Amino acid sequence: MSHRKFKLTSPLEALRRLMGIARENIAFEEIPTFNACGRVLAEEIVSNQDIPPHNGTWLDGYALRSEDTLGASAENPVALKVVGSMEPGMPPETYRLSKGEAVKVSTGAFLPLNADAVVRLEEVEIRDGEILVKREAKPGMNTTRRGEDIRAGETLYREGFMLRPQDVGLILGLGKLKVKVYAKPKVAILSVGSELLEASKTNPAANNYAYIAEMLAEELGAEAKVVGIAPDDPEKIAEMLGEALEGSSMVLTVGGCSVGEKDLVPEAVNMLGQPGVLVHGLLVRPGHPAGFGAVKGKPVIMLPGHVVSMVSGFYWLVAPIIQVLSGMRKGLMLPTVTAIFEGDEANPTGRYYFLRCSLRREGGEIKAKAIHGGAGILRTLKEAEGFLILPPKAEVRSSSRVEICLFNRLEALNLSEPPGYLKEFFT
Amino acid sequence: MSHRKFKLTSPLEALRRLMGIARENIAFEEIPTFNACGRVLAEEIVSNQDIPPHNGTWLDGYALRSEDTLGASAENPVALKVVGSMEPGMPPETYRLSKGEAVKVSTGAFLPLNADAVVRLEEVEIRDGEILVKREAKPGMNTTRRGEDIRAGETLYREGFMLRPQDVGLILGLGKLKVKVYAKPKVAILSVGSELLEASKTNPAANNYAYIAEMLAEELGAEAKVVGIAPDDPEKIAEMLGEALEGSSMVLTVGGCSVGEKDLVPEAVNMLGQPGVLVHGLLVRPGHPAGFGAVKGKPVIMLPGHVVSMVSGFYWLVAPIIQVLSGMRKGLMLPTVTAIFEGDEANPTGRYYFLRCSLRREGGEIKAKAIHGGAGILRTLKEAEGFLILPPKAEVRSSSRVEICLFNRLEALNLSEPPGYLKEFFT
Repeated sequence: MSHRKFKLTSPLEALRRLMGIARENIAFEEIPTFNACGRVLAEEIVSNQDIPPHNGTWLDGYALRSEDTLGASAENPVALKVVGSMEPGMPPETYRLSKGEAVKVSTGAFLPLNADAVVRLEEVEIRDGEILVKREAKPGMNTTRRGEDIRAGETLYREGFMLRPQDVGLILGLGKLKVKVYAKPKVAILSVGSELLEASKTNPAANNYAYIAEMLAEELGAEAKVVGIAPDDPEKIAEMLGEALEGSSMVLTVGGCSVGEKDLVPEAVNMLGQPGVLVHGLLVRPGHPAGFGAVKGKPVIMLPGHVVSMVSGFYWLVAPIIQVLSGMRKGLMLPTVTAIFEGDEANPTGRYYFLRCSLRREGGEIKAKAIHGGAGILRTLKEAEGFLILPPKAEVRSSSRVEICLFNRLEALNLSEPPGYLKEFFT
Repeated sequence: MSHRKFKLTSPLEALRRLMGIARENIAFEEIPTFNACGRVLAEEIVSNQDIPPHNGTWLDGYALRSEDTLGASAENPVALKVVGSMEPGMPPETYRLSKGEAVKVSTGAFLPLNADAVVRLEEVEIRDGEILVKREAKPGMNTTRRGEDIRAGETLYREGFMLRPQDVGLILGLGKLKVKVYAKPKVAILSVGSELLEASKTNPAANNYAYIAEMLAEELGAEAKVVGIAPDDPEKIAEMLGEALEGSSMVLTVGGCSVGEKDLVPEAVNMLGQPGVLVHGLLVRPGHPAGFGAVKGKPVIMLPGHVVSMVSGFYWLVAPIIQVLSGMRKGLMLPTVTAIFEGDEANPTGRYYFLRCSLRREGGEIKAKAIHGGAGILRTLKEAEGFLILPPKAEVRSSSRVEICLFNRLEALNLSEPPGYLKEFFT
C-alpha cells in the first residue's frame, strides 16, 4: 500500500482542529440525582440549608440546660425533672426546657428548645421522673451543631466536578433530586468493507474490531453502539453514515480509509456535504490512514481497519473528544502510570510512534516493555495494558522513567495491588 | 451510647469468618461475549483455531512463488502470468499457482495455494496480462503467516482474568459467542429506622445513606439495590430482610445495629434462623457497631447508621466480599496509591482506625492528609478520596510514605493527570 497519496498531518494539529468541531457538540442534560454517579456537573451546587438543620445529639442521654448543672458532683448531684423524650426527626419545638428540666433523647434526635448539652444515659441516676446529674455539663457537650456538616449558602461543588457516591448522597441530602450534567457522548460506529459484510452473514463476530472500538469508548464513559457494516460502495457508506449521525455526537468508521481502490470512506464523507474530509492521514505509526471530517457540524472520525492502527487512531482522535464532550477537565478518563522502561526504543522518523506496552509490577514499581508486531496482530493488544507516545526523533532508554497511558480504567484495576489491610485475603 | 454490651471482634478475625460464608455464595453465569467487558472469566479460553487461518498479505500487490523470481533484476525482470485476483475473505483454494503464475491480491487477502511471497503493486510493471518482477522475492515477503496472531490449542486466558475490550474482541474473533464468568454479586440494601421511614414519606432523598452504600457497591462492580426502609420493629425488619435475601448474594442493613433500645437488627437477624448473628461489634473506629450474620447461608452485613461508620463498615466487611464474589484475585476493585502523609496521627487504642484522607497531587507526588470530624459528618467524606487503616497502637509520621486505599475507581480517575500527549488540551 502506498502512502504517497496521503498528505500527512501532525496528530496534534489534527486534534486541535477536531477539538474545535467537537466543542460545538457539548450537550447537557438534567437527570435524576440518583443516577448521577460518575457524571460531570454542568452547574454549581450551593447548599439551600443547614445540615443538620438543628442542634442534636450523637448519643442516647438527656438533653438539658448546662447552666442548671453548675456545681454538680457525685457528692452533690443536681436533680432535673424529665419532661418528655425525643426521637430522631421530632422538631426542637416539641419541648422547651425551663429551669430544672431535661428531655430524654435518642441518638440522632434534635435537642429541645433551650437545651445546650446532653449527658450520657449511663452517667445519670434515674429516680421518680427525675435524673440525678453527677457532674457539670459543658455547653455543647455530646451535641451536634446546626450547620456543622453543611451551611446554607455554601458552594459545595463547582461546574466540572465528577460526582462520586458521597457527593450524590450529599446532594440528595439537600433535597435536590435533579442535577444538570454533561450529556454522555453518543458514539456510533460503522464498519466498512464488503468482505466483512459477507463474513458477518455467517459469523456474528466477524465485526469484532468495531466492538473493540465500542468497548474502548464505553470504558471512557461514552454511550457507544456498533450500527452496522457498510459494503465498499460510497453511496451506501454515505447513506449509512447519514443514519448513524442521527442522534449521535460523533460517528467512527472502521476500515476503508486508506488509499486503495476500496478505500471509499473519505469519498462518502465528502458526499454528505461541506466541509467533508478535513484531515486524512496522520504523522503517526501505526494508524497513519486515520483522519476526520465534519458532517452537519458533527465529527466523523475515520479509523483504519487494522486493529492496532484502529486503536492508535482511537487514542489520538476519539478518546480526547469523548473526554471533552463528557465535561472532563483533566486526564480523568485515561489513567496514566509512571513506569521503568525496559529495553531501548528509538523513533528516527518524523511520526509519532504509538508504542504498545506491557506492564507488570515488580518490587513496588511498574516495569514497562514495548510490544512489537504487525498492525493487524490483536495479540499485541492482549499483551499490552497501555501505550507510550514516542514523539518524532525521540528515544527512550532502558531504565528510564516514562509515562504510560493505560487504555482505560480496567487496566488500572488490573495493575492494582490488594490494599494492605486486605493482603491476607487476596494473595 | 454504651459500648459495654458489645463483644468487639478484631475486624480481620471477623472478615475471615465472613469470607468463609461468602465463598459458599460464589456463582457463575454464561453470558454473551459481547457483554463480558469488565467481567472475570470462570473458564479457561483455549484457541480452537489459527488466527489468521491462512497465510495472507498485508498490502496490495501480486502473490507469487518466490522460487519463480530467482535471479530477477531490473535488467533481467521475470515475467509472470496474472491468472486472477483475490480479495479479503476469498479462500486460498480460489487459485492454485503453477510455475510462472501470479495472482493480484488486495490488502488482507489470503494467498492462493502455492504462493509464498507478495510483491508490491508499485514495484512491478504490468503488461498484457503479465507482470514483470524486477527483483527476487524472498519467501514470506510481505505476507502474514497462518497462526501468527493466535495458534490453535493455545491457552489464551486463564480462569480469573478480568476481560478488557481487546480480550473480548479476541475471544469474539475465535467465534466464541458465550463465556462463563463470575456472576456479579447482587447486593440488597435495607435501611432501618422508623424516623427514616417517616421522613421518607415527604422526602424521597431521606434515605440517602443507603443510596451511598448502593453506589459504593456499584462502583466496586456489584449489582446493588436499595430495597426499602424498615421501621423499628423486629418482626417487620425480619420480614423485609427475608424478602431482600431472595435473589441476592448478600443483604446490607444500614442503621439499627447499635445497642440502644431501637437497635433491633441483630434481633431480627436471629429471628430468621440459625446461625443468625455471628459477629456484632468490631475493633474499629468509627464503625464499631458493625457486624454480620448468616441467613440461609447468605451473609447479612449490619452497618451502622452514621454515614462515616457505615462507610468504614462497608470497606471492612462489604468491599472484600464483593471482590471475592466477583472472582477478583487481587486488589483489583479497590485501587491504592502511595502518598506522602502530612501531619502526625497516632492510634493509642486497641482498635483499627479508619482514617479518612484527602489527597492532592503536588510536584509529581500525591499528598495525603487526615480528615477529622464526627462519624455523622458527610462533608468529611466529600473532602476525602480514600482512607488509611491505622492498626492498633500504630502511628504515622508527617512526610512518611503511606498506602491510601481509594474509595473506588472514580477517585482514581479524579486523581489522574492528563497524559503527556494530550497535555495541551486538558490544562
